[in-house]
Amino acid sequence: MKITALILAGGKGERFWPRSRKNCPKQFLSLTGDGRTMIQQTVERIRPLVDPEDIFIATNKSYRDLVREQLPEIPEENVLYEPVGRNTAPGIGLGAVHIRRKYGDAIMLVLPSDHQIKYKGMFLNVLKDGIRVAEEGTNLVTLGITPVAPETGYGYIKFNPESTKEDAFKVDRFVEKPDVNKAKEYLESEEYLWNSGMFVWKASTILASMERHLPEIYSGLTRIESAIGTEDEDSILRGVFESLPSESIDYGVLEKEKNIYVLPGTFGWDDVGSWLSVERMRPLNESGNTVAGNVLTVNVKDCIIEGEKKLIAAVGIRDLVVVDTEDAILICAKDSTTDIRKIVENLKICNRDEYL
Amino acid sequence: MKITALILAGGKGERFWPRSRKNCPKQFLSLTGDGRTMIQQTVERIRPLVDPEDIFIATNKSYRDLVREQLPEIPEENVLYEPVGRNTAPGIGLGAVHIRRKYGDAIMLVLPSDHQIKYKGMFLNVLKDGIRVAEEGTNLVTLGITPVAPETGYGYIKFNPESTKEDAFKVDRFVEKPDVNKAKEYLESEEYLWNSGMFVWKASTILASMERHLPEIYSGLTRIESAIGTEDEDSILRGVFESLPSESIDYGVLEKEKNIYVLPGTFGWDDVGSWLSVERMRPLNESGNTVAGNVLTVNVKDCIIEGEKKLIAAVGIRDLVVVDTEDAILICAKDSTTDIRKIVENLKICNRDEYL
Repeated sequence: MKITALILAGGKGERFWPRSRKNCPKQFLSLTGDGRTMIQQTVERIRPLVDPEDIFIATNKSYRDLVREQLPEIPEENVLYEPVGRNTAPGIGLGAVHIRRKYGDAIMLVLPSDHQIKYKGMFLNVLKDGIRVAEEGTNLVTLGITPVAPETGYGYIKFNPESTKEDAFKVDRFVEKPDVNKAKEYLESEEYLWNSGMFVWKASTILASMERHLPEIYSGLTRIESAIGTEDEDSILRGVFESLPSESIDYGVLEKEKNIYVLPGTFGWDDVGSWLSVERMRPLNESGNTVAGNVLTVNVKDCIIEGEKKLIAAVGIRDLVVVDTEDAILICAKDSTTDIRKIVENLKICNRDEYL
Repeated sequence: MKITALILAGGKGERFWPRSRKNCPKQFLSLTGDGRTMIQQTVERIRPLVDPEDIFIATNKSYRDLVREQLPEIPEENVLYEPVGRNTAPGIGLGAVHIRRKYGDAIMLVLPSDHQIKYKGMFLNVLKDGIRVAEEGTNLVTLGITPVAPETGYGYIKFNPESTKEDAFKVDRFVEKPDVNKAKEYLESEEYLWNSGMFVWKASTILASMERHLPEIYSGLTRIESAIGTEDEDSILRGVFESLPSESIDYGVLEKEKNIYVLPGTFGWDDVGSWLSVERMRPLNESGNTVAGNVLTVNVKDCIIEGEKKLIAAVGIRDLVVVDTEDAILICAKDSTTDIRKIVENLKICNRDEYL
């Protein structure tokens, strides 16, 4: 069966402020230090399995130029613009109806555009396993990550170790981000994986599931589908999307289905969820620092310093994230990176759009 | 007797990098937040006792424009340029011979240009006491500061509590910056004051002392004195100064004299020796922060943040000094401000003069 991919690229990346901005969020930035942006790496990674003309991008109209510039190989009609954010179910549904319209049916790899994967060959092998499982009947496959720590920043997937199909396990349920004690229990039980937000299924399977569990969204999607290629396409897309409820694919669809499988992955995955992940992606110097740009340090330990042109002189500091950009600089304690959102909120409330 | 003042303004203020720069050091900056520079405040403070035409400035040729701009009321011929830095003895001697040449003899107040004094009336009273003591015979007067903590960043003056003249005490000796245990002993003994580097004497007295204890420097100074107003003035000043040894007034002259008195001052003195003093000079907010400029904070405590145009977003940080300037930003732990010198040294070694 034809293999396609839908890359989700509508995120705002606010946790990467001030580097990530409204007009150029995280997925369009190079954070790993290799010069390729995250969305470019995402496309490159799956190229051995998927041709560029079979790759779809779900994003936001304001990122049109960034997509064209960074991914010139993707055909223009494969770039789908969500008029408003309505969480993952409508976005994935939009991709699915475009794929159904173009190919009748096809395998869909659903992939976030802003994750980091170290072992690319292993990742492709897991995707291939996923495709095999998804091709059979009405199976829905999600990729789970074998946890290495009791992380509280991820959702978890409870699987049934007794019930397998090839290398995949039947999913019992999806659980929201736990507190640290729950997370420790999950790790000890050896029956939980991190929820990566990566999926494999046939377009027909996910659309049938949406029809069953999210009929309102499904009916909107069919109206969008019939307008594809017509002169009303844009206005119908906008009208329908604005009327849809926000719904996640995990809780709105997958939890309600029976044929959900999870494939455990150990391919060096990182969701690049905060500035702390920069430390995991880049080499550290002998003092535990990750330093880029015009930086001078004296007695600095375990810091992430991202400079630009301006000289950053760091003296005697520990466990800080420092990120300089042309108009704003962030100085954040490593244990406070989730509070970066509060800065962004404050900027919104005060209408300081130039910094967003 | 005529009262004159010599303001010492040749310092580099490296501890205030990156705000203080080679071409505009600390004394020419406004650090207290009231808009007046430190040298302007120094002049203003003594105006009730000294007329502008009797105020002399010992500085460096490269600060000529800054002095003219900030102190237009001081006559041009009163601005004395030390061709090279040779510590305080030659600089003060240069002022003394200019005063002798202009007035025959006069009281000289010798004042650093970069100190902060809160209680200006009290300060003037102490100066008046000093003038009374200095007018008599060959007394040399130094102002000592009543210590409030076992500071290790100041020199100390041991006085003899039994031997007084008006409110002044006879000085036993000058001691270099002590370690913290020694400093605690000094405090407990109640016989030590901080050495403020402020002095009162007659020009004739200090010159006679220099003739006795630093004959080489004195002889150089007389050659400079006889060239004042001639066309050779500049070249002789340069030639002589370059040949002089570096010598401090405290150890080179005062320690060797008998008639040294110290006047204790409790006029809210601060030598503005590091960024930490900014905290003492400016109001703190309810989180213990001193914040200026374009700054947003989330859960920040006990920090000094000096912004400019660029937005500084500070999140979860404690006990840091953050100073932004057009081309450089400093992020320094409060307990590491003495290491700012290492940044400056590094910049010198690497010939990055644009940042000095």
